[in-house]
Amino acid sequence: MKRRVFLTAATAGMAAGAVAKPAIAQSAPEIRWRMTSAFPKSLDTLFGGGELLAKHVAEATDGKFIIQPFAPGEIVGAPQAADAIGSGTVEMGHTCSYYYVGKDPTFAIGTNLPFGLNSRQTNAWLYHGNGNDLLNAFYAKHNLFALPAGNTGAQMGGWFRKEIKTVQDLQGLKMRIAGLAGQIMSKLGVVPQQIAGGDLYPSLERGTIDAAEWVAPYDDQKLGLNKVAPYYYYPGFWEGGPAIHFFINLQKWNELPKAYQAAIQAAAGYANVDTQAKYDARNPAALRSLLGAGAQLRPFSPEIMDAAYKAANEIYDDLSAKNPDFKKIYDSYKAFRNEEYLWFQVAEYAYDSFMIRARARG
Amino acid sequence: MKRRVFLTAATAGMAAGAVAKPAIAQSAPEIRWRMTSAFPKSLDTLFGGGELLAKHVAEATDGKFIIQPFAPGEIVGAPQAADAIGSGTVEMGHTCSYYYVGKDPTFAIGTNLPFGLNSRQTNAWLYHGNGNDLLNAFYAKHNLFALPAGNTGAQMGGWFRKEIKTVQDLQGLKMRIAGLAGQIMSKLGVVPQQIAGGDLYPSLERGTIDAAEWVAPYDDQKLGLNKVAPYYYYPGFWEGGPAIHFFINLQKWNELPKAYQAAIQAAAGYANVDTQAKYDARNPAALRSLLGAGAQLRPFSPEIMDAAYKAANEIYDDLSAKNPDFKKIYDSYKAFRNEEYLWFQVAEYAYDSFMIRARARG
Repeated sequence: MKRRVFLTAATAGMAAGAVAKPAIAQSAPEIRWRMTSAFPKSLDTLFGGGELLAKHVAEATDGKFIIQPFAPGEIVGAPQAADAIGSGTVEMGHTCSYYYVGKDPTFAIGTNLPFGLNSRQTNAWLYHGNGNDLLNAFYAKHNLFALPAGNTGAQMGGWFRKEIKTVQDLQGLKMRIAGLAGQIMSKLGVVPQQIAGGDLYPSLERGTIDAAEWVAPYDDQKLGLNKVAPYYYYPGFWEGGPAIHFFINLQKWNELPKAYQAAIQAAAGYANVDTQAKYDARNPAALRSLLGAGAQLRPFSPEIMDAAYKAANEIYDDLSAKNPDFKKIYDSYKAFRNEEYLWFQVAEYAYDSFMIRARARG
Repeated sequence: MKRRVFLTAATAGMAAGAVAKPAIAQSAPEIRWRMTSAFPKSLDTLFGGGELLAKHVAEATDGKFIIQPFAPGEIVGAPQAADAIGSGTVEMGHTCSYYYVGKDPTFAIGTNLPFGLNSRQTNAWLYHGNGNDLLNAFYAKHNLFALPAGNTGAQMGGWFRKEIKTVQDLQGLKMRIAGLAGQIMSKLGVVPQQIAGGDLYPSLERGTIDAAEWVAPYDDQKLGLNKVAPYYYYPGFWEGGPAIHFFINLQKWNELPKAYQAAIQAAAGYANVDTQAKYDARNPAALRSLLGAGAQLRPFSPEIMDAAYKAANEIYDDLSAKNPDFKKIYDSYKAFRNEEYLWFQVAEYAYDSFMIRARARG
């Protein structure tokens, strides 16, 4: 763009009205970014959040700032995304912070902690509870800047080949579950397994594993796990309101014109509400379909929930003792959660309770 | 801007690189809009949603598209906003659709119906359940284009001078409550009153009225009603998830450059998630403070909830029989609600239930 500005200024004696032109041109440079998504295109609700951001940024900048989403593996795989963005190999990504707990367990809090905030509370903490600022101070150590990009809402607890009623039933159970959730389950006797989504069906069919968690009805339906592991447990207590994030290379973010930063921020906010809305709109029909195809809904027993809650708190105490970043952010998150449920148990919960009962009565 | 373009082209033989300039200039015209807010600045959470939109649109357009928010009465009052926007007196507004039920009861559905969708479900219906399209087809008859702009979440049922336990206790009770909620309460024996927010305190203190509904703890706290009507009922079954809207004059919207439309759409989405997040972040401390100052929390009794639910459905049946626009949109909304609670009663509700119990146990 600089060349154009030079030519314009050079062509003739500048009319007063033309003085503004170079400023416009400079503030709207042509920029192309690549965005590595951690979500395969088959998970259209998640992948679509990145496409939505790209579309609105392109439109709002009159096609000057183009962000192109790439499926996992086209540039780097999901596990490598944080490093690739931090190092500047790719300018930005669309991913879940908790995929990077191997680098530092503090990454988990950005998405959600087991028995943590629900979806709305997560947004409240991020945008207006100091969460975004606390997280970005941590992410900056990894050369990342993050913006909330969506939420799935409370997830399901996954698919089990047999009913489980007690903690005893979990002993030796091979379950596909990762991260802090895997550590909690491990304390309860489960043997956590790391298996890619595409391998879950044959693994459950063959009995290589006994259970697998994925997301919620709309995404789960695509894997067809109900045919090989019919018991569909809830709630996924390890994912009560997991946030999706856009991760951006910190220098690249700081170098963006302010107008482009504003376009990304607004589009990320829109992607946030839109992604949750899409999940909420699509999960009911998928649940209905799964139930029609033989899925057996089962709540986790109070015994299992209580044991998992205790195990989670032990893990948080351990991590807080060892990791100052984790402690600092967890302390904020935990205190916020306590306040949130003081309020959510009143109008919101009473309203939903009545509506659920009214629906059941027809 | 046209004058500038002409001057530039006229100054000298145009260099190839300069050809793009007029296009940039034309696609980024300087536009100033006024936005009439229906919310006083004292309701900073609501008024702030309009400011957030204005800020992001201004930044994303490099200061070319300026939207200036005005408090109610500075241009027109909240009740006149829809007409003023439709007629083009003012380009846009930040308001609640249900303030205009006097024009047509169909306006109510845009915000929320009593016993309707909760906040997340409202977004799901609007963005991905055909709600926005159905509503905009209706709003077009009033020369309006609407974008969701926020939500308060489930509201409280208001402040009562005396405890009410039965429908009998509601007979002759003078309550500040408007719109369809007022019609429902009227069927239950209440005498609905129309009183401005600022007059609620003296009216309750003097006993001119017996009860008043407002919003939820953060906004309610500002009015101090706990001192004159200590019984604080929940849930506000008439506002389980009320949406805020940006209303835009339809021609003005259609005439906007596509880039400016994209900037508004993204910023409106961001304002939507941000407004809900702000309420969710601020309500807990306000509730705690109100309880500390003597507010007495009371749930509406099942008898009152059931009677109100029945009354609401009768009103919807009546309106559907008389008003094809209402019927068309209500049918979509009602069917969507039935599907939503099929799903929300599973993972989401079970998760919140556990977290509320876990908090109560410490």
